Amino acid sequence: MHHGIGFIQDLAVVMVLAGIVTVLFHRLKQPVVLGYIAAGVIIGPYTPPFQLIHDEQTIQTLGELGVVFLMFSLGLEFSLRKLFRVGATAVVAALSEIVLMLWIGFEMGRAFGWSPMDSLFLGAILAISSTTIIVKALSELGLKREGFAQLVFGILIVEDILGIAMLVLLSGIAQTGQLSAGIAFVTLGKLLLFMTVSLVAGILVVPRALAYVARTGSDEMLLVAVLGFCFGFCLLVVKLDYSIALGAFLIGAIMAESRHLHRIEHLIAPLRDAFSAIFFVTIGLMLNPLVLVDYALPIATITAAVILGKLVSCGLGTFLAGKDGRTAMRVGMTVSQIGEFSFIIASLGLTLKVTSAFLYPVAVSVSALTTLTTPYLIRVADPLSRRVANAMPPTLANVFGLYGQWLRSLRPASGEPTVLGMTWPIVVQIAVNLSLVAAIFLGVSYSAPWTSGFLANWLGEESMRRVVLWSGALVLSMPFLVAVWRKATSLAMLLAEVSVQPATAGRFTGAIRQTIAQLVPVVSMIGVFLLVAALSGAILPPVGLLAAVLVCAALLMAVLWRWCVKIHASMQIAFKETLNEQPDP
Amino acid sequence: MHHGIGFIQDLAVVMVLAGIVTVLFHRLKQPVVLGYIAAGVIIGPYTPPFQLIHDEQTIQTLGELGVVFLMFSLGLEFSLRKLFRVGATAVVAALSEIVLMLWIGFEMGRAFGWSPMDSLFLGAILAISSTTIIVKALSELGLKREGFAQLVFGILIVEDILGIAMLVLLSGIAQTGQLSAGIAFVTLGKLLLFMTVSLVAGILVVPRALAYVARTGSDEMLLVAVLGFCFGFCLLVVKLDYSIALGAFLIGAIMAESRHLHRIEHLIAPLRDAFSAIFFVTIGLMLNPLVLVDYALPIATITAAVILGKLVSCGLGTFLAGKDGRTAMRVGMTVSQIGEFSFIIASLGLTLKVTSAFLYPVAVSVSALTTLTTPYLIRVADPLSRRVANAMPPTLANVFGLYGQWLRSLRPASGEPTVLGMTWPIVVQIAVNLSLVAAIFLGVSYSAPWTSGFLANWLGEESMRRVVLWSGALVLSMPFLVAVWRKATSLAMLLAEVSVQPATAGRFTGAIRQTIAQLVPVVSMIGVFLLVAALSGAILPPVGLLAAVLVCAALLMAVLWRWCVKIHASMQIAFKETLNEQPDP
Repeated sequence: MHHGIGFIQDLAVVMVLAGIVTVLFHRLKQPVVLGYIAAGVIIGPYTPPFQLIHDEQTIQTLGELGVVFLMFSLGLEFSLRKLFRVGATAVVAALSEIVLMLWIGFEMGRAFGWSPMDSLFLGAILAISSTTIIVKALSELGLKREGFAQLVFGILIVEDILGIAMLVLLSGIAQTGQLSAGIAFVTLGKLLLFMTVSLVAGILVVPRALAYVARTGSDEMLLVAVLGFCFGFCLLVVKLDYSIALGAFLIGAIMAESRHLHRIEHLIAPLRDAFSAIFFVTIGLMLNPLVLVDYALPIATITAAVILGKLVSCGLGTFLAGKDGRTAMRVGMTVSQIGEFSFIIASLGLTLKVTSAFLYPVAVSVSALTTLTTPYLIRVADPLSRRVANAMPPTLANVFGLYGQWLRSLRPASGEPTVLGMTWPIVVQIAVNLSLVAAIFLGVSYSAPWTSGFLANWLGEESMRRVVLWSGALVLSMPFLVAVWRKATSLAMLLAEVSVQPATAGRFTGAIRQTIAQLVPVVSMIGVFLLVAALSGAILPPVGLLAAVLVCAALLMAVLWRWCVKIHASMQIAFKETLNEQPDP
Repeated sequence: MHHGIGFIQDLAVVMVLAGIVTVLFHRLKQPVVLGYIAAGVIIGPYTPPFQLIHDEQTIQTLGELGVVFLMFSLGLEFSLRKLFRVGATAVVAALSEIVLMLWIGFEMGRAFGWSPMDSLFLGAILAISSTTIIVKALSELGLKREGFAQLVFGILIVEDILGIAMLVLLSGIAQTGQLSAGIAFVTLGKLLLFMTVSLVAGILVVPRALAYVARTGSDEMLLVAVLGFCFGFCLLVVKLDYSIALGAFLIGAIMAESRHLHRIEHLIAPLRDAFSAIFFVTIGLMLNPLVLVDYALPIATITAAVILGKLVSCGLGTFLAGKDGRTAMRVGMTVSQIGEFSFIIASLGLTLKVTSAFLYPVAVSVSALTTLTTPYLIRVADPLSRRVANAMPPTLANVFGLYGQWLRSLRPASGEPTVLGMTWPIVVQIAVNLSLVAAIFLGVSYSAPWTSGFLANWLGEESMRRVVLWSGALVLSMPFLVAVWRKATSLAMLLAEVSVQPATAGRFTGAIRQTIAQLVPVVSMIGVFLLVAALSGAILPPVGLLAAVLVCAALLMAVLWRWCVKIHASMQIAFKETLNEQPDP
């Protein structure tokens, strides 16, 4: 019991100081997060008397657990249902904010004479607003239920997704040193594939497994199961070279579909609070106050740029998407800060050793300053928007008003089915099923070095082993291939109906429609085959054997057709059930 | 974000396996704790395929956090109020159990040819029953509210206290290699002093501080404050060379007096569950199944001895303390296992490098076996006691019945004040105040190397620095010295009244009584002075200066008398208020 005293001492120092400083900050009506960072600065090596902890590495490791729990909680608050609901406004506002802030950040960095990589990371650091700080500020001001707050939460959800894409892209750029459009496309495609497959598979498996465990009534077992899924999935994600933050967020989003969401949130909250406190303290640990003095000018400029840039970009995006000026102003002023995501991006740069040492403390200071200003900005947004409206020349106000009217006139009257409205769900289903097929072939190819070695005990020939693996993958993906075929058929029929009108095709209408309806699925299955063959190059059998496999598969598929349809239908039903289930209160 | 993958992998392996195995064990209706241990055995290096984790040290460190949270939770369930209530039966039963099991364990170890230290640790390992397992078994059987269960909880509380004393004594024996009665007396005296002072000071400070933080309504801040106090106090305890388990238990017992006990329990439960899972897994990690085969005979024998020994010792103790045979049987069968305390003691032996490697796996196996039998024993206790009662020859049954009657006849009729009943509270108050005085002088002496060095800037002479430090301690302890004086006076008056009866002392009664009443406090203050002087040898000024200090102090005390009384009274009121406060539901 006497070893590990250093560790206990470190934890004690962190927790005692975090406790004292946050209570102090709370008394001064400042955000608790700033208190943690301040405690970290005091503990850290740059302030007197001296470094107060022995084993910074262990504390950093615990801080990383804080990132896991923070992102996991963010994921729990996210949900596919919510994402479908937030609609176009949130997407437009988030996109315009991120693009503009990336650009502003990059240009500012270049103007300060920083390296292109530092400037790029600065842009990424400025791009994403802080969910934690916004949620706290809004609930402290009692504005959480207002319309603009709902819109802000929608924007934050979109930002989380885009932020994760940015994390992945930044890792790629940092490792290769450049970004070609092709690589970005492939990277984002792989990310999308991975996210789709894990969400679909996860939502099929995880909420059911948790419901089984929850039925025991034991909070302890439910917690261990949740942590098992969380860390197990994070490990898988890390092994696939994605960041642990992505893994924690995704598994959180999967568990958000569980019926026991509220119990899970309750069990995770203390773990998140304890470890995120450590995480924010470790941010303070790395903060050298002297650097802040040296970089006072950039910090002040960047802070101003964050506040103005986010106000303009996000506010304008909201307005352009059709909200009134007052809402746009409130949204813009609410998101005008940076937070936990910026720390994660800044520490990514440090870990990959591509950014300079000063970037991290600069990011933390800008975050601290903008965190301080956020509540005041939110409070001042409403009066300010009124004053701006009054001060505006009537013609300009008229133009704005007309824009809103014009935008609303563009929308189709609700209830009237559009072609897009009918084809969209079918396209999504085809894409999801294709993703699953692709994932199965990729997974089998990825595991080939081991499984092939295992098969070598029975099958001497390399080509035969490939046949076995490739056919296995084909059999596994059969239900999804059948679904793709069926959806493609119905999509083709729909398109044929719409595109071939009797007015132009005359008496050939029926024949042309039928040709299209039969040709499109066949062509698309050939496309699927080419895609699959490209993805599974490592296990693709030689041409002769491949043909034999395909013939056998076609026969098998014909025999098992109804069974495949049934399997797929029951999976689809299970998936939709889980999605539509409301969490227990 | 990419470093620390090994750590995430380890956590993932631990959590995933713990989750799967515990769900399996739960299905098989076996205790969850055994599931954790089994998961640890699978993960560990002794079972195929291989060691599944990279950095055992970090996992062990997290497991130690599990011990902290386990003992802290045990402390939260403990409370002084409950200890006062459980009464003599629990003390007698717990004492007889611990003493007998210590002896049985030691003798068995010697009989197996083990070293005296191994045998001693075996005795200690067998002495304490497992609160965790008993609470779980009783609540699963729906017996938690029965009378005998309340008695069992009382016994467990007393065992916790005695177990902690044993931990301290074992550390001492392990380091010096022997145990003289004198050293044991001093060790236990110091422990008692430390526990009294920390409980009194803690109950005065901690619940008030937590109430202040809780008023913010933020669970996050309350949790950080609780963790700050917990780890801060653990650090203090470890620095004083006590085990971290003692620290966690004591600070838990202090927080048990907080009004916000239930909120704290709620916040700590997930942390306890997560980290105690890791703790139990680390127990399994150290388990070599081959050792179990080699030591099958001792394990079987010890398991039988634990079950029979605890049944007899604790059951007999309960019976001798005046409970009926059925209750005694049920109590004895409920406590017949060993658990978390045994692991802590066994790992103490390993850490101090005084026990052999086989002792730990033996302890774990015995715990596992007795954990498995506990629910069956509890269930069988009632029918068995009935059968024993029926099978008992009537004369024997009569003797037992008479014993119970005789015991009940010994008790004073309630409501009638006895001398003991009146003097006892005064003696306790004197002891507590003396402890505080002693702690102040010890604390100032302990800090002398630093404070004296600091004073050296102004006071060149060593003896003058001693005067300053010693007078400082004296001034600090003045309210408590005044309280000791006043309580001693009233105790003396009471004793004079009782011991000097007019029948024997005749007309001198009044004079003798007054002499006693005035002499006793003076004599006891001289005793206090000698005690304090002995404790504060490091800062005791030379005789001449000491006399001057004492005279000044006497004058100061006369002037500040009323103020001291007021200070002490308000502290006493605050203390009692906190003790009597019921926790919020």
